[in-house]
Amino acid sequence: MPDKPALSPLDLLRPTIRAMPAYTPGEQIADLTKLNTNEGAHPPSPRVMATLAAIADESLRLYPDPVSRKLRSAAAARFGVAAQQVLAGNGSDDCLTILYRAFLDPGDRVACPWPTYGLYDTLASLQGATLVRVPFLADGRRLRLPPELARQRAKLIILANPNNPTSTLVPVAELRALCEDARDAVVVVDEAYVDFALAGGVEASMLPFLDAHPNLVVLRTLSKSYSLAGARLGLLFAAAPLVEALIKVKDSYNVNVISQALGVAALEDRAYYDRCVRQTVAERARLEVALAQLGLTFPEPTGNFLFVEFGDRAQQIYEALKRDGLLVRWWAAPELRTKLRLTVGKPAENDRLISALRKQLSGL
Amino acid sequence: MPDKPALSPLDLLRPTIRAMPAYTPGEQIADLTKLNTNEGAHPPSPRVMATLAAIADESLRLYPDPVSRKLRSAAAARFGVAAQQVLAGNGSDDCLTILYRAFLDPGDRVACPWPTYGLYDTLASLQGATLVRVPFLADGRRLRLPPELARQRAKLIILANPNNPTSTLVPVAELRALCEDARDAVVVVDEAYVDFALAGGVEASMLPFLDAHPNLVVLRTLSKSYSLAGARLGLLFAAAPLVEALIKVKDSYNVNVISQALGVAALEDRAYYDRCVRQTVAERARLEVALAQLGLTFPEPTGNFLFVEFGDRAQQIYEALKRDGLLVRWWAAPELRTKLRLTVGKPAENDRLISALRKQLSGL
Repeated sequence: MPDKPALSPLDLLRPTIRAMPAYTPGEQIADLTKLNTNEGAHPPSPRVMATLAAIADESLRLYPDPVSRKLRSAAAARFGVAAQQVLAGNGSDDCLTILYRAFLDPGDRVACPWPTYGLYDTLASLQGATLVRVPFLADGRRLRLPPELARQRAKLIILANPNNPTSTLVPVAELRALCEDARDAVVVVDEAYVDFALAGGVEASMLPFLDAHPNLVVLRTLSKSYSLAGARLGLLFAAAPLVEALIKVKDSYNVNVISQALGVAALEDRAYYDRCVRQTVAERARLEVALAQLGLTFPEPTGNFLFVEFGDRAQQIYEALKRDGLLVRWWAAPELRTKLRLTVGKPAENDRLISALRKQLSGL
Repeated sequence: MPDKPALSPLDLLRPTIRAMPAYTPGEQIADLTKLNTNEGAHPPSPRVMATLAAIADESLRLYPDPVSRKLRSAAAARFGVAAQQVLAGNGSDDCLTILYRAFLDPGDRVACPWPTYGLYDTLASLQGATLVRVPFLADGRRLRLPPELARQRAKLIILANPNNPTSTLVPVAELRALCEDARDAVVVVDEAYVDFALAGGVEASMLPFLDAHPNLVVLRTLSKSYSLAGARLGLLFAAAPLVEALIKVKDSYNVNVISQALGVAALEDRAYYDRCVRQTVAERARLEVALAQLGLTFPEPTGNFLFVEFGDRAQQIYEALKRDGLLVRWWAAPELRTKLRLTVGKPAENDRLISALRKQLSGL
């Protein structure tokens, strides 16, 4: 009697994994000018580079501190919270993964305003959870939080503020009201881009209200305003007992020893950070004027990027820019396909972007 | 009417997360001689340190390659497989997490011989899966694979070879038979310590049989024989279609840009690796003789550590060694509590360990 045919290991994958598409990160093409994934425009702090040069072979040889104590203390000092209210992640993607794994059983619901960061959807699929997308409300050049967001029977409500890809900001008062209205949910505010809003002089962060809302989780990243996307450093802020529970969910040694050290150096160099963020905000203002002069429209930007309407020509302009050596972000999704997301780069890069767009739009 | 009291966010945690204990990694105490977490005894390759010194600020600023192409190519060249058969992880803990998340729905079963690496259990709890522990069979100074292991209706069968904490090795022929017997399961062989067995001249790795067994997954780490525990680098080897599916499950940018570069340098410096592993194996042989002369017994060691029987005095000796500045590993679990796991260190560290044990055992 012949053996029964063996299952392919692919047949053993969880159904949710088999069914889901892969998340597509932005292209990483080294020889193009990258204005597609919202990295900071400046090099990391000189203190970061000095710290990197001083990493000892012995610290590479040994396991890192599993709970990143020095990094969490530096973050606590920098942001005015207790170290026990901080969890360090291998990028804020890791922090998001930890949250989804901690709260969402298969079939549970996670809600977010839409459009937003596509990874929120991918992570829901991975967990077998249902993502409920509640459309933002248009309000001139801003987007408002939909009031139904609090009423989706979701265990997790997640939103990026400033939002990605729209670069719009929801006022802190609205977010505080959401925390109150959705007291039976955990409200996650992903502040990856908030530093560029704060530098514009706006009250934009929920961190000062961490103690006021026990159901609030705030995420920060060092990938943008600290120019450390390559090092993978995210920070999660929440009530201390929640952080303690989340530590059970993270990988034992989730942040490597080098990134822990670089993160401390970056957080401590406040002056350099201020200078970089101020320059980026100034360049954003310059881009706003130049793009408006080209007749382009976009929501009021608060991150280090602009989300610009190009109508039917968006994909074509994306491809033309790429041929010119400028990589920006375009998505094929119906709600996004007429727009391009443009990262604010260095002054010379922004000049090239403006020239290239002028060329395209004048049909030359 | 008063508001109904809000749920605590802790009440929203998945029941499996609330119920599970935290995984306890080995203590990381910088000012003790660490012989407790099986790091390599030597510094990383000088090429690794040169690569670290050459990391450019621009590579820190930008996102890393999401799929670690150069690192996977270096691993493919080093281990004689195709790059498409390799997945890079943030430590092999990350590779394990990816496997558990890919295959195990709540209620699914994962089986492993016992005792073994405690994280296999923690990861099952995180996933809401059931870990089935099948005791190893004693066979003189070796441990044999229990034949029932293949018959546990498990989707995943996982074993460390050499095993941790016992340092014992199961022959490749037994593992190949397991892959055949359990064709409806994925068999994961965690070869974190295999380099120390291979250096002893034993056929110990399943990597040459990757193409023969579609249900086989092999894990390697750079934390031990490459002395890069601080950098977090793990490698997963499997059939190319399975690797492609697992890439959907990993975090988008799971390995940072620095570790990707260090991993390439470490894998390419074959001569340095050979020298380090040979010295460790020689020191292991010296420790074996010295411990036997003290009347101590232990299974035949094949990793860079020994699992030594101390009877009722194990905890007491662990504490006495710690007072002497030597940190080794002791577990309170009933099946482990009479034993200590001793990492093979540098020659001077091993000398100190032998002296300290002699002092304890002679009751001085």
